[in-house]
Amino acid sequence: MFNHNDFHVNSGTHQPPISSEFVAHANPLAKSLIDELSKEFGPRFSTSMAVREQHGQDESAFTSTPPQAVVFALTTQEVSRVIELASLHQTPIIPYGAGSSLQGHLLAIRGGLSLDVSGMKEVISINTEDLTVTVQPGIGRKALNEALKHTGFFFPIDPGADASIGGMTATRASGTNAVRYGTMRENVLALEVVTAQGKIIRTGTRAKKSSAGYDLTRLFVGSEGTLGVITEITLRIHPQPEAIMAAICSFPSIEKAVLSTIEIIQMGIQIARVELLDANSVRMVNQYSKLELKESPMLLMEFHGTNQTVQEQIDMVKSITKDHNAQDFEWAKTPEDRNKLWTARHNAYFAALSAHPGTRAISTDTCVPISRLADCLLESVDQADASGLPYFLVGHVGDGNFHFGYLIDPLSNEQREKAERLNHDLVMRAISMNGTCSGEHGIGLHKMEFLRTEIGEESISMMRNIKLALDPQNIMNPGKIFAN
Amino acid sequence: MFNHNDFHVNSGTHQPPISSEFVAHANPLAKSLIDELSKEFGPRFSTSMAVREQHGQDESAFTSTPPQAVVFALTTQEVSRVIELASLHQTPIIPYGAGSSLQGHLLAIRGGLSLDVSGMKEVISINTEDLTVTVQPGIGRKALNEALKHTGFFFPIDPGADASIGGMTATRASGTNAVRYGTMRENVLALEVVTAQGKIIRTGTRAKKSSAGYDLTRLFVGSEGTLGVITEITLRIHPQPEAIMAAICSFPSIEKAVLSTIEIIQMGIQIARVELLDANSVRMVNQYSKLELKESPMLLMEFHGTNQTVQEQIDMVKSITKDHNAQDFEWAKTPEDRNKLWTARHNAYFAALSAHPGTRAISTDTCVPISRLADCLLESVDQADASGLPYFLVGHVGDGNFHFGYLIDPLSNEQREKAERLNHDLVMRAISMNGTCSGEHGIGLHKMEFLRTEIGEESISMMRNIKLALDPQNIMNPGKIFAN
Repeated sequence: MFNHNDFHVNSGTHQPPISSEFVAHANPLAKSLIDELSKEFGPRFSTSMAVREQHGQDESAFTSTPPQAVVFALTTQEVSRVIELASLHQTPIIPYGAGSSLQGHLLAIRGGLSLDVSGMKEVISINTEDLTVTVQPGIGRKALNEALKHTGFFFPIDPGADASIGGMTATRASGTNAVRYGTMRENVLALEVVTAQGKIIRTGTRAKKSSAGYDLTRLFVGSEGTLGVITEITLRIHPQPEAIMAAICSFPSIEKAVLSTIEIIQMGIQIARVELLDANSVRMVNQYSKLELKESPMLLMEFHGTNQTVQEQIDMVKSITKDHNAQDFEWAKTPEDRNKLWTARHNAYFAALSAHPGTRAISTDTCVPISRLADCLLESVDQADASGLPYFLVGHVGDGNFHFGYLIDPLSNEQREKAERLNHDLVMRAISMNGTCSGEHGIGLHKMEFLRTEIGEESISMMRNIKLALDPQNIMNPGKIFAN
Repeated sequence: MFNHNDFHVNSGTHQPPISSEFVAHANPLAKSLIDELSKEFGPRFSTSMAVREQHGQDESAFTSTPPQAVVFALTTQEVSRVIELASLHQTPIIPYGAGSSLQGHLLAIRGGLSLDVSGMKEVISINTEDLTVTVQPGIGRKALNEALKHTGFFFPIDPGADASIGGMTATRASGTNAVRYGTMRENVLALEVVTAQGKIIRTGTRAKKSSAGYDLTRLFVGSEGTLGVITEITLRIHPQPEAIMAAICSFPSIEKAVLSTIEIIQMGIQIARVELLDANSVRMVNQYSKLELKESPMLLMEFHGTNQTVQEQIDMVKSITKDHNAQDFEWAKTPEDRNKLWTARHNAYFAALSAHPGTRAISTDTCVPISRLADCLLESVDQADASGLPYFLVGHVGDGNFHFGYLIDPLSNEQREKAERLNHDLVMRAISMNGTCSGEHGIGLHKMEFLRTEIGEESISMMRNIKLALDPQNIMNPGKIFAN
């Protein structure tokens, strides 16, 4: 996963307007709604333009589309109250956590209220004996891991951004550790949710498994705020491994790096992280971070386990990479060395922008079955090379998920169209290989057409029916995932 | 997971009638529907009483409640056609696989058609390079593993019954390997489903992760036939471990066995199986299977990995069990020895019935957070002991899931009520400990009231709204999970 700044600049004057197809006219907020919210929330209700502007954007390339007002809720009961009032006035609600989503999720394209839950950031309970933790939605993943630090456990899901756990749940986020630990899909056990009617419900229990009716938990995981507001999340946590080893391994070609990854996964080796950087990225990272990494395609890997199992994994991976003419591993054994290594990975975007001043990046998020990774990725590299656009390429290749960043002059329509065409072709390629348009960022506004192509009209219609069943007034983050 | 015969006898004259609250009057099938199905399906459409009787029951204690007719579909298109016709006539459809469900899922309480997909049992594709397999719903888990045998991969989910993969998907089944490999929730990647309108849709892709809209796959996993008919399933498969070791370990008390299990899980040891048998079960198994196991509470364990990691796990587990005064491990090293061991486990039910001729068993399926396992289990043991009813106790204790079998004289209302009271109290105990009434068997008819207590009226209402959104005529297995 990228640092949330990896791909997008969200300030400046040259951002593309959001497509007019998304924006609908919104009636002004009802005076009685404003009065009631003012009365009940006092200074935690705001109609100031600065606050609205900030809440009308995320880390995507879309310009801010401000809500009509912002409410800062501090309790589940307050969330319920806001939704109750909004429902009375058929006013849209857009849940807001850290503001780090990447697909236009937070834009108030139908007006309405931004419901900011960033103040709800308590760790409600840590149950190390059950390997679970229960938190409020506003807590960031870093603060959560800080709170867990002394317990010997950690929460592995790590989008680059210090995203909120609520937002990560709502977008089904993942990150660099997903190859071993799974995504939010596998790591959310139970939720408290406020429905579109303002009712407070619980989905799931703290039991590890269940066959008790429809899987409402996983319905809300990835629902992007369109079905209700997540107010409490019970997560799995994992024991901090006895041994952690991180290594850099350079390859003579991207193909060799990718083929090594495929073999590692197919052998069932429980590698914790295996991240690809292409030579472009390494070169730019070297320049930016004053490093002297070999400017070739590179895998960054991390191994978790006991000393013995880590050594065993390393031996197996070394043997695989050697067969693909890789260089020897360079080790990052201390926590400091590892941090440096992962910082280099997270800084790929800044490095790229710095190497190409004045550009910005158009991002991709496809994920394919591991056997098609080489085909999908190498074809896309060829096409990107042929386009003449500068780009960088990084990815959670162990999961078949990778991200191009096409670097364009924001003033050049020609370059923008070229980049969007590359993105489009890549998505079509991934779909034709039984992959998906989104591995981890979600649909939001940006990928609605891709989703339609991927799952077809009937599945879209099923999603829409579910949405309308749970939110008949269509007030929960309307116009995201599907147009209506 | 039990052998599907572990708990219920579904023949004989003393079965309890199903509660009349479940059964609604069904109009006779429309003549035009009968004519059309006869014409299109020929001998694969049946109204014979024998065929209907067989399709109106599962392995639960409920008596057969036959459908009005049975259709044997061989293709997705045929499934679609049957649903289309049923929809035209507002006739219920009950999907039928192996008939091994445990909660009354297959009873035609509103009449209608049993849609038998047991003939759809092809392995459509094995993709070892992606660790996936795609199958039709009628294939049994044993046949699937037979088909995988030569590939070096296996499918771990193992309810005792040779259930169909479609049925296992529909009930979110798990089994003895779930502690390491997860349940159907974690192992189903994608589905083909025929909707209540007869439309064929696909949910998910073969990519390992996705953030592409609502998680329709996991909505259908565990939906018990109430949302549509599953016609194709893409599953994760796992490399056959290099080393497998199985061990028996006896304890001076159930408490010691349970406390050992809790520590094993809390240490994060990746044990593949850890199953509990109480002393009653061991004694009955000894008698039945002519074994000489020590008649004390016992854990059956299995370790998967490389030789090195298996040894490492064993060392850790031995050290834990020793602290709890366990006996030395007895080993089952060869596949034959292991089979014998797991057979003893699966035969616990027969052993129990054989030791108490004329009795039958009332089963439980609670699952609690691992830290509450000892409390929940030991309190329930005390209560069962105090009841004077004979019983046995087995469980997937690594997951916090266990099953009592209360042995009753089927003619004794007093004993039945006693057993149902024990079951009821156990479920309430589990729910109060943030656990669930169903770890793996599903809700069906038997646990509807427990589900209501567990998740509350608002969550039931959300499930019902989803059901009605996808199946407005309420023709898909109506009256299961929730009464309407």
